[in-house]
Amino acid sequence: MGTASFLKRAQALLRIQNQLARECLAELLAVFVLILITLGGSAQMVTSSGTKGNIFTAYLAGALAVMVSVYTAGGVSGAHLNPAFSLTMCLLGQFPWWKFPIFVAVQTSAAFISAGAVYVLYYDAIQHYSNGTLTASGPRETASIFATYPADYLSLSSGFLDQVMGTALLIVGILAIMDTRNKGVPKGLEPVAVALLVLSIEISMGSNCGCPLNPARDFGPRLFTYVAGWGVEVFRGKGARWGVAGVAPCPPCPVPSRGNGWWWVPVVAPLLGAAVGSALYQLLVAFHHPTEEDDPPAEQNSLDLVNTASRLDAKTSPVEKDAGGTLPQKK
Amino acid sequence: MGTASFLKRAQALLRIQNQLARECLAELLAVFVLILITLGGSAQMVTSSGTKGNIFTAYLAGALAVMVSVYTAGGVSGAHLNPAFSLTMCLLGQFPWWKFPIFVAVQTSAAFISAGAVYVLYYDAIQHYSNGTLTASGPRETASIFATYPADYLSLSSGFLDQVMGTALLIVGILAIMDTRNKGVPKGLEPVAVALLVLSIEISMGSNCGCPLNPARDFGPRLFTYVAGWGVEVFRGKGARWGVAGVAPCPPCPVPSRGNGWWWVPVVAPLLGAAVGSALYQLLVAFHHPTEEDDPPAEQNSLDLVNTASRLDAKTSPVEKDAGGTLPQKK
Amino acid sequence: MGTASFLKRAQALLRIQNQLARECLAELLAVFVLILITLGGSAQMVTSSGTKGNIFTAYLAGALAVMVSVYTAGGVSGAHLNPAFSLTMCLLGQFPWWKFPIFVAVQTSAAFISAGAVYVLYYDAIQHYSNGTLTASGPRETASIFATYPADYLSLSSGFLDQVMGTALLIVGILAIMDTRNKGVPKGLEPVAVALLVLSIEISMGSNCGCPLNPARDFGPRLFTYVAGWGVEVFRGKGARWGVAGVAPCPPCPVPSRGNGWWWVPVVAPLLGAAVGSALYQLLVAFHHPTEEDDPPAEQNSLDLVNTASRLDAKTSPVEKDAGGTLPQKK
Amino acid sequence: MGTASFLKRAQALLRIQNQLARECLAELLAVFVLILITLGGSAQMVTSSGTKGNIFTAYLAGALAVMVSVYTAGGVSGAHLNPAFSLTMCLLGQFPWWKFPIFVAVQTSAAFISAGAVYVLYYDAIQHYSNGTLTASGPRETASIFATYPADYLSLSSGFLDQVMGTALLIVGILAIMDTRNKGVPKGLEPVAVALLVLSIEISMGSNCGCPLNPARDFGPRLFTYVAGWGVEVFRGKGARWGVAGVAPCPPCPVPSRGNGWWWVPVVAPLLGAAVGSALYQLLVAFHHPTEEDDPPAEQNSLDLVNTASRLDAKTSPVEKDAGGTLPQKK
Repeated sequence: MGTASFLKRAQALLRIQNQLARECLAELLAVFVLILITLGGSAQMVTSSGTKGNIFTAYLAGALAVMVSVYTAGGVSGAHLNPAFSLTMCLLGQFPWWKFPIFVAVQTSAAFISAGAVYVLYYDAIQHYSNGTLTASGPRETASIFATYPADYLSLSSGFLDQVMGTALLIVGILAIMDTRNKGVPKGLEPVAVALLVLSIEISMGSNCGCPLNPARDFGPRLFTYVAGWGVEVFRGKGARWGVAGVAPCPPCPVPSRGNGWWWVPVVAPLLGAAVGSALYQLLVAFHHPTEEDDPPAEQNSLDLVNTASRLDAKTSPVEKDAGGTLPQKK
Repeated sequence: MGTASFLKRAQALLRIQNQLARECLAELLAVFVLILITLGGSAQMVTSSGTKGNIFTAYLAGALAVMVSVYTAGGVSGAHLNPAFSLTMCLLGQFPWWKFPIFVAVQTSAAFISAGAVYVLYYDAIQHYSNGTLTASGPRETASIFATYPADYLSLSSGFLDQVMGTALLIVGILAIMDTRNKGVPKGLEPVAVALLVLSIEISMGSNCGCPLNPARDFGPRLFTYVAGWGVEVFRGKGARWGVAGVAPCPPCPVPSRGNGWWWVPVVAPLLGAAVGSALYQLLVAFHHPTEEDDPPAEQNSLDLVNTASRLDAKTSPVEKDAGGTLPQKK
Repeated sequence: MGTASFLKRAQALLRIQNQLARECLAELLAVFVLILITLGGSAQMVTSSGTKGNIFTAYLAGALAVMVSVYTAGGVSGAHLNPAFSLTMCLLGQFPWWKFPIFVAVQTSAAFISAGAVYVLYYDAIQHYSNGTLTASGPRETASIFATYPADYLSLSSGFLDQVMGTALLIVGILAIMDTRNKGVPKGLEPVAVALLVLSIEISMGSNCGCPLNPARDFGPRLFTYVAGWGVEVFRGKGARWGVAGVAPCPPCPVPSRGNGWWWVPVVAPLLGAAVGSALYQLLVAFHHPTEEDDPPAEQNSLDLVNTASRLDAKTSPVEKDAGGTLPQKK
Repeated sequence: MGTASFLKRAQALLRIQNQLARECLAELLAVFVLILITLGGSAQMVTSSGTKGNIFTAYLAGALAVMVSVYTAGGVSGAHLNPAFSLTMCLLGQFPWWKFPIFVAVQTSAAFISAGAVYVLYYDAIQHYSNGTLTASGPRETASIFATYPADYLSLSSGFLDQVMGTALLIVGILAIMDTRNKGVPKGLEPVAVALLVLSIEISMGSNCGCPLNPARDFGPRLFTYVAGWGVEVFRGKGARWGVAGVAPCPPCPVPSRGNGWWWVPVVAPLLGAAVGSALYQLLVAFHHPTEEDDPPAEQNSLDLVNTASRLDAKTSPVEKDAGGTLPQKK
């Protein structure tokens, strides 16, 4: 009937054939979904004062958000979702460097927009919970729905280390899950395995500073809260939720600095963690995979990703072969 | 022995070959199962005062109910379960418009009947918990076991937006999970992936108004409670559970209307959300899938569903080819 | 080295080739594992007063126990685990009637033995928790670790209905999961899908009477508690945990009988529920599957099980072909 | 670009071709990840006083840690992770005895190192929670983050039995999951099934003594706590957390000994449990699998593992054929 022909005409009119544009649109939608579910899980816990959600449902929302997002864009853009993962792909020669800033911009913008959507969705709830005052500290603070803040005992250096270790573990896990020469996950179930990996990190490394692991996930929503009225406090982040600025809540603790200028830690540390994680997995596992004749050609890259994005790239964007240099890729 | 020949005779006698009748029977059973588990999870939490269930088990019941239901009828009727999903299939040219009202009627009737089964199953528990008085407000209200009611801070417009956004996310996720040209889920595991998707929405968008997402799931049981003795209050739904009608429970809140005439919101908003979600996925992802020669024929539809229902339809009901018009379907 | 030749000699010596004996051994181990994990989950919750387990971990243990058990024996005996499921297989002509009492005996004995193992495992914990007094009522009762008891508001007839409905839902779900002509689960993942099904029933129908669903799971451990010192009260089960025998804990409740002689309900009702569930799935779904030429031979049975047990049976036990009568089975 | 050629040069320089060295590196990384997530889950629960984690998230972390670890090294070293599992493989002729002590050393060292990483990661949190005093007893003890300690009611003999039974169940479950002649798990999903198995044991046998099940997981971190300042108390373990040494916390309990010298129990008992579990599965299931002509060659080993490690071994290390003696292995 008319439905099908309407769809065909709409597709003919609106279809985008440019590979990069397609990838950016898909990545935009995927990160929007990721942040919507992740922040939604926090908002549900916080604004209902724990009656409609708890710390476990909030973590689980963050993990399942990854699953839904990877299904949303995995076959188009690779669903990087995270500048730290895009960096890993670049470092391993699986993603061209010139695309890196573009993806980072898309990811961060999508996170900003999605934070706005969460604010609209939970507008009544946030007004009700906070009595209409948007703050980043005090018992009714709501800034932590959007961005992460460190526990009051945490020094900046420990927080930085936390994010390096957490992201390194995330990258080791993802590389292992995608490495078909290792144990391997059945095609199409990588998103579920990665979601369980994220959950495992959240419940084992989430109490120090809320487990951002992703510069875009943290900075985009933080910027939104600054713009939307929480004020500059969201960047200082000192004493957020856990005490008044300048007054140590636990005097005997050996804590030199309590989150002063915290905002850059979840931006920088995950990128460093991604490099550490990539290096660890290459040095301890991937470099040493056998390259006998019964295996794929010996010249091939050390990491053999089950990643539709790189397959699509190889097929349609000659620039990347340049980028890949002497690296023979599967086609 | 006798068992097998008895079965054969019974099958010969009772077998229905009409495609639509088969689909309606399977859809009826699937929605019955969906509502039985979903409302059962609520009833267990409410009537045990939280000792045998909590908010997480109630959400999980709703998610696993979807999984069980899709396995129950997925290979016969496609297990739409939800008028919003049937609408999506119509909008994408995957389901004939003339079947839409039939499926909606079946889904809503099954939800009504199943609500009755839950009432019978939990009759003693509800009598015990409510001291025999069936109400939709007050500390011992039991109407929220069956239908959803908004939080007291929620304005009607925010509730409407909540359901549009939630259902749009549901539809984006389902279309992505079923889209074999995207990441793809292994055949036979779509029900598990969709259940996890539903869980992610419940725990990130469930606190405003209980995450109905499905007109049949909400209206069928609401109608049952009206008939079964909860009275007309279930349609007005104002002040249900959270306060006495007409008295604002939180005076300083900027809430213009607290759920007056709530009942139509979970009926209308999910249908609009389904349209929004379909459009989003088509415009940002599905329209732009490549159609090179190494891919299936270029004339094919923008969305390639792994949906047994549509396959079966194509095989046995010529009417739908008419309905599909110029749309070449796989056979 | 010696290890391998030792293993070969041991296998040569101990190997059992009789099909029925193999099945019984595997079923014995599987039910032992099922009950060990199921009751262990209860014991952990009860004896730690909720500090090491809660209602969700106890339900989850019951569900995962099914998964582990089906992996343990699914390829040998079919891992029925439950007289209600064995009955279903008989009713559908997939399991010979003469084996039914044998499997029921093995299942019940394994449950009895396993209850003993749980008692030994948690001996110190039970002594500590109960101050050394084994009772089936009162605040420190421990009988409900082993068998199920009804909530104090529950009438016998409601409890009976609860078990018929719960088991019918279980059987509908299992038949759907195993039905390759419906949606279908990937081979080897049926145990996970069935475990999620069981979890969904436990969290939506578990508060009335603890969701036994399985005569062997309930009666074997109940018999053990009788023998081990809890006394005849475990059969009467009246007022267990929720009040002193003969005194109604909630006078205004319209409850005619509070679990007097409860023990036979979880024995009889699940068998009836299995028949109801089988009939429902056959009448609403399985009877109507298409039998065109592009499908397997038209004479075949209405239900096409992905069940290794039946395949093995067909291969090695001619008796069952007799039992199967005119039913052509796949080989 | 430079990235790919840099990677190739790095790989050429650093590549290790020795099979044993490759396996040890992968096993090292896998056990590091296992312990990082497992202990991290405990640390999060303990140091946040339950606000960022609870008993369920801690158990779940232990289970998901197994999944992540098996993906990390499963295709290289087989991801034994546990001396008890390495012993099982030896007993079944699937792993050479001479490698056993090497793997045990690697596993224990990795656990020790990883405990150190957890200490660094949670340094601020532990200092804050314990007020700077590292103890193995009292209300603010932190030793139980790293190693397991028995409940105060538990006698040594009951604790020993608990670990024998728990590990036997673990081994039965793993052997069943890996046994392709039984029900079978789809290739690549064994890690998920094993994680669910571990979770089922933790929530049904975790309250007596914390469910170590793994000598390396328990002894490595315990040694670390001794070195790092918790003192010799961690080996005595008497009265840890649950009472002052030498004073019975519950006088009427029939408990002869409360964890005196507990440390050796989680080292020895799991090894015995592994032997018991292997014997049980062989005697009740694996020995009796049919060996007809339609099955693989009759001389083959009783257990047919889906284990990449053994496949790789057979391919590259002739020593193991010696070790395997008369056992014809698949190549």
